[in-house]
Amino acid sequence: MPSAPLFAMPSHAADLARIEAALAAAVRTQDAYLDEIASHLIKAGGKLLRPVLTVVAAQVAGGAPIDDAVQGGVACELVQTGSLCHDDVMDEADTRRGVETVNAKWGNLQAIVAGDFLLARASEIAASLGTEVAALLARTISRLCEGQIEELRHTYNAARPEVSYLSSIRGKTASLFATAARIGGLVAGLDRPHVDALTEYGEAFGMVFQIVDDLLDITATDERLGKPAGHDMVEGVYTLPVLRTLQSGGVAAAELLALFGKPLDTAERDKALEIVRANGGIASAMAVAEEWAERARGACELLPPSAATDVLYAAPAALIAMV
Amino acid sequence: MPSAPLFAMPSHAADLARIEAALAAAVRTQDAYLDEIASHLIKAGGKLLRPVLTVVAAQVAGGAPIDDAVQGGVACELVQTGSLCHDDVMDEADTRRGVETVNAKWGNLQAIVAGDFLLARASEIAASLGTEVAALLARTISRLCEGQIEELRHTYNAARPEVSYLSSIRGKTASLFATAARIGGLVAGLDRPHVDALTEYGEAFGMVFQIVDDLLDITATDERLGKPAGHDMVEGVYTLPVLRTLQSGGVAAAELLALFGKPLDTAERDKALEIVRANGGIASAMAVAEEWAERARGACELLPPSAATDVLYAAPAALIAMV
Repeated sequence: MPSAPLFAMPSHAADLARIEAALAAAVRTQDAYLDEIASHLIKAGGKLLRPVLTVVAAQVAGGAPIDDAVQGGVACELVQTGSLCHDDVMDEADTRRGVETVNAKWGNLQAIVAGDFLLARASEIAASLGTEVAALLARTISRLCEGQIEELRHTYNAARPEVSYLSSIRGKTASLFATAARIGGLVAGLDRPHVDALTEYGEAFGMVFQIVDDLLDITATDERLGKPAGHDMVEGVYTLPVLRTLQSGGVAAAELLALFGKPLDTAERDKALEIVRANGGIASAMAVAEEWAERARGACELLPPSAATDVLYAAPAALIAMV
Repeated sequence: MPSAPLFAMPSHAADLARIEAALAAAVRTQDAYLDEIASHLIKAGGKLLRPVLTVVAAQVAGGAPIDDAVQGGVACELVQTGSLCHDDVMDEADTRRGVETVNAKWGNLQAIVAGDFLLARASEIAASLGTEVAALLARTISRLCEGQIEELRHTYNAARPEVSYLSSIRGKTASLFATAARIGGLVAGLDRPHVDALTEYGEAFGMVFQIVDDLLDITATDERLGKPAGHDMVEGVYTLPVLRTLQSGGVAAAELLALFGKPLDTAERDKALEIVRANGGIASAMAVAEEWAERARGACELLPPSAATDVLYAAPAALIAMV
């Protein structure tokens, strides 16, 4: 989603190059066919936000980026990419990162196995960083699943409670950002209160990230998104701006409710987008994002002052500015 | 597949009860919906061969079964069950362990997430047993994926080389039995040569297990299997007895070849089964299973004499006797 780097340390370009090289090495396997499939989404190039966060978090301790932070970040990125492989099967998605999805190019069977492989490689790397990181990463994958199941349970449910939305994005998105930041602190040898502050930062940043992502699905044009806007509503995933519009009562809520509970055609989608855009759902959801951004900045105040801390502090506002 | 316990230690019933309790505890989660889905196949009751193998392997060191062996075995069983969730999505299977599959009962999306969740819980437990076990389990999941991809690559390929079959079952089946036995040795504190011998035993036993499973798909009645015989051929997975029949040349091979390369209807399946049964493919594949059984027994001879060693020694022949 972001166009400029969100965590722009002076070493950003060099850090990215190290992460990319380590990521490519991590998915290499002797089986040429699996190699091709598993590296497909990696080669397409993600934004690498999670591994960059790990590396920046480690730099809060001062000093140059360390190999273990790069490896820990790569483990988080592999979890993210493995989950995307599986998400794309579930969503029957055709494109991702500007290229064909694994399921579209090779088939669902291959995408399921490739996702499992990427998750397993992530666990292998985590194990090389010690039992605490290994247990943390495994627990994080469980939380991603819990978050996804929470979302699935409420698909097409216009009465979805807001607490379900928040619990779902905390599990499916914020937990991995929290873990990315925490691993950075752990491998850098920061003391526990600082490791915990980084974890809190990562979780709050992740909440902002997902709320902004869900807002962009409502506010952005199809061109900017690179996919049709309103996709979540079409698929029955009712996110914060939508839930806030429904909660507002009145004619707008009633009109939206009448559209919901089933997939939307293009005209219905356009109407739903217009209703959410025109009735305060955006501003209301933005306010929640601002609260989480404030919480992220509050966590930074518990960290030792450093160039890395400043970079972390600035990132949530830069994210919100993208809406 | 087996009706009598294959690894029948005097403590077998008590060991099974401990494993079942630990397994139920391992999949428990706060989310009631995920809890129900993830525990569905566990509650249906598997044969628990892998965790029993872990517990017996640990008993080679002498003494009573230990908690870490139970936990390590449970991690292996969770990997197995998570893989089955994903396999059933890939195969569009309706029943498993005598109950509806997760995909049939809840949907593909739920089955993919449930599989991921079970694999993640396995990794969490492995991490609690130390970095060596954590890395080993993660590497094993990668190998399962490599084995499955190898099979997928050759679906409907009547020219599939036998080395592809052997490499695929080594990855998708034998590697997890090897790991189950190895974890038993590791947590029991056996010395390295004995841990390695247990690993070799587990791998060889796993090869016998899969060849026997593939043979039963050809030799058993629909009633005994609880599913239609010849399922592998119908789905384009050409296993050892089939490949041996194709290799034999002559009329039988030509007739079989004419049927292959596409899904089979019931009449074609019956004809293919008849050809494989009547032309030495069974005996030829049995001989390969015997070789692996002999290798498993050879590994037992490297282990210290114990009641557990005797149980391991006897198991491959008991498995082969089921065909």
